[in-house]
Amino acid sequence: MAAKISGSVLVTGSNRGIGLELVRQLSESLCPPNQIFAGCRDPNGPKAKELRELAQKHQRLITLVCLDTTNQASITEAARVVGAKLKDGSLNLLINNAAVNIPGSLAETGEKQMMEVFQTNTVGPMLLTKEFLPYLRNAASQPGAQSEMSCRRSAVVNVSTLIASIEKCPETFHGAPMYPYRVSKAALNMLTRCLAEDLKKDGILVMALHPGWVKTDMGGPEAPLSTEESVKGTLNVISSLSEKHVGTLLDWEGKGIPW
Amino acid sequence: MAAKISGSVLVTGSNRGIGLELVRQLSESLCPPNQIFAGCRDPNGPKAKELRELAQKHQRLITLVCLDTTNQASITEAARVVGAKLKDGSLNLLINNAAVNIPGSLAETGEKQMMEVFQTNTVGPMLLTKEFLPYLRNAASQPGAQSEMSCRRSAVVNVSTLIASIEKCPETFHGAPMYPYRVSKAALNMLTRCLAEDLKKDGILVMALHPGWVKTDMGGPEAPLSTEESVKGTLNVISSLSEKHVGTLLDWEGKGIPW
Ligand SMILES: NC(=O)c1ccc[n+]([C@@H]2O[C@H](COP(=O)([O-])OP(=O)(O)OC[C@H]3O[C@@H](n4cnc5c(N)ncnc54)[C@H](OP(=O)(O)O)[C@@H]3O)[C@@H](O)[C@H]2O)c1
Ligand SMILES: NC(=O)c1ccc[n+]([C@@H]2O[C@H](COP(=O)([O-])OP(=O)(O)OC[C@H]3O[C@@H](n4cnc5c(N)ncnc54)[C@H](OP(=O)(O)O)[C@@H]3O)[C@@H](O)[C@H]2O)c1
Repeated sequence: MAAKISGSVLVTGSNRGIGLELVRQLSESLCPPNQIFAGCRDPNGPKAKELRELAQKHQRLITLVCLDTTNQASITEAARVVGAKLKDGSLNLLINNAAVNIPGSLAETGEKQMMEVFQTNTVGPMLLTKEFLPYLRNAASQPGAQSEMSCRRSAVVNVSTLIASIEKCPETFHGAPMYPYRVSKAALNMLTRCLAEDLKKDGILVMALHPGWVKTDMGGPEAPLSTEESVKGTLNVISSLSEKHVGTLLDWEGKGIPW
Repeated sequence: MAAKISGSVLVTGSNRGIGLELVRQLSESLCPPNQIFAGCRDPNGPKAKELRELAQKHQRLITLVCLDTTNQASITEAARVVGAKLKDGSLNLLINNAAVNIPGSLAETGEKQMMEVFQTNTVGPMLLTKEFLPYLRNAASQPGAQSEMSCRRSAVVNVSTLIASIEKCPETFHGAPMYPYRVSKAALNMLTRCLAEDLKKDGILVMALHPGWVKTDMGGPEAPLSTEESVKGTLNVISSLSEKHVGTLLDWEGKGIPW
């Protein structure tokens, strides 16, 4: 089923894993968006080979953007590059996908791990949202824009995780201690909820999404879901977001997850 | 009513506000703990005058400890100093109270604010808990220790806040945007819940506590609660903690707050 995601989309961390598959499925959809910006911290490096090939195949659709989400100068430059290409200066959908995980028991976790993971997984999405806010606002307030909130009008999707659920921690903790990751993603959930409240007056829909446990470098080979399945579900959920999903945490099948 | 808190207690950030009042009420209780360690980052500075006077009045009870909760060397040294004074190398209660707030709307918040507040409010309590863990474990496993979990056996109380509730964010956001603070305290709630799961096998009770909105430098003059009222309630809650409170977030009256 083709996800109805139109307009312009930016995906961070799109050179591998879920990010790469998001760009692939968006570009190969029967009804693709108008512009796909594929953020990647080293677009010319060996880890971006597949993404470069994909962009080559869909030259008019995909723009590779050099973007390190922990580096303000890189974010500013990416916003300049993307801004110059956007139709009406409007970005319709920002998917904050880039993240890191340092699996860490308490003994393995120190200040360094906590700070680094927080910077990428929580501060990164905040800086991205702030920097692209003028374009997201433009999209929401276009004369032709729908009055309903949606990913076709203006939205920010933060890729979170089930194990960011504080409520569910007793069930999930022993299978995956990961202090820095859990803490950073619970922090991302709060950020999401604050942004959702803050930006709904502008017509920008902000929510968080758990892609499932997925076979990627991060998810590992034992994960039950392929990137194809996860992203198919994820794009369906994103395409059907409306006002009632503002500030929610949903999984790739659209089911709610408690905070 | 005298709170039944016995054994040894360490309070961080105890030179003013809620921390100072915690040390005061603990030391002036009819039935005080055996040892109170009052952590403070500048025990000889002007901001610690009241704490020094209090410690002077209760010389056998209160030990001033130089402790900057964002500085690993300072934490290590504080643990050495405290460890040398602890009876049986046992610390019964750690209250992670030190915190900062940089009130910040989205426009006012950047990487610097996010990282700084996270370091103090989230990473600080983690480093403290790790460093004092051997003493907390000793306390939990003393031959004479109760088998029930309690603050008299071994406990870590992280001072959190109502506005760390992701669930309640839509109700509380516009009254107090404070991105860095909210995000850091939601992160602290996840940390609390992870530590609670992790350390319950050792007999260490970990939970989070909201002291109410309190007249301090941080709470401001409009806050409805005095430090006396807040701390009286807080100590009552702490003194009655048991196994069923592991990994909970309670307010100063003992009421649960959703994540
Ligand atoms: N896989 C799972 O089971 C699972 C489960 C729940 C949630 N998630 C979430 O899903 C998202 C994608 O995960 P994944 O499994 O696809 O992870 P992955 O395979 O490890 O890929 C992570 C991606 O993020 C990028 N990235 C990391 N730091 C970056 C930075 N500072 N700037 C720019 N890009 C950066 C990486 O780029 P480089 O190649 O340059 O490192 C890579 O493209 C993450 O938010 C993750 O937390 C995954
Ligand atoms: N007041 C409220 O309404 C309220 C509401 C909810 C939760 N809380 C929480 O209650 C706790 C106490 O707050 P408060 O109102 O008493 O705040 P406060 O009046 O601002 O006092 C903060 C204390 O933390 C110390 N501190 C800050 N950073 C430190 C560091 N790196 N190392 C050591 N000490 C440090 C300060 O020491 P210096 O003097 O050296 O700066 C001070 O003693 C905090 O966790 C706060 O988040 C307060």
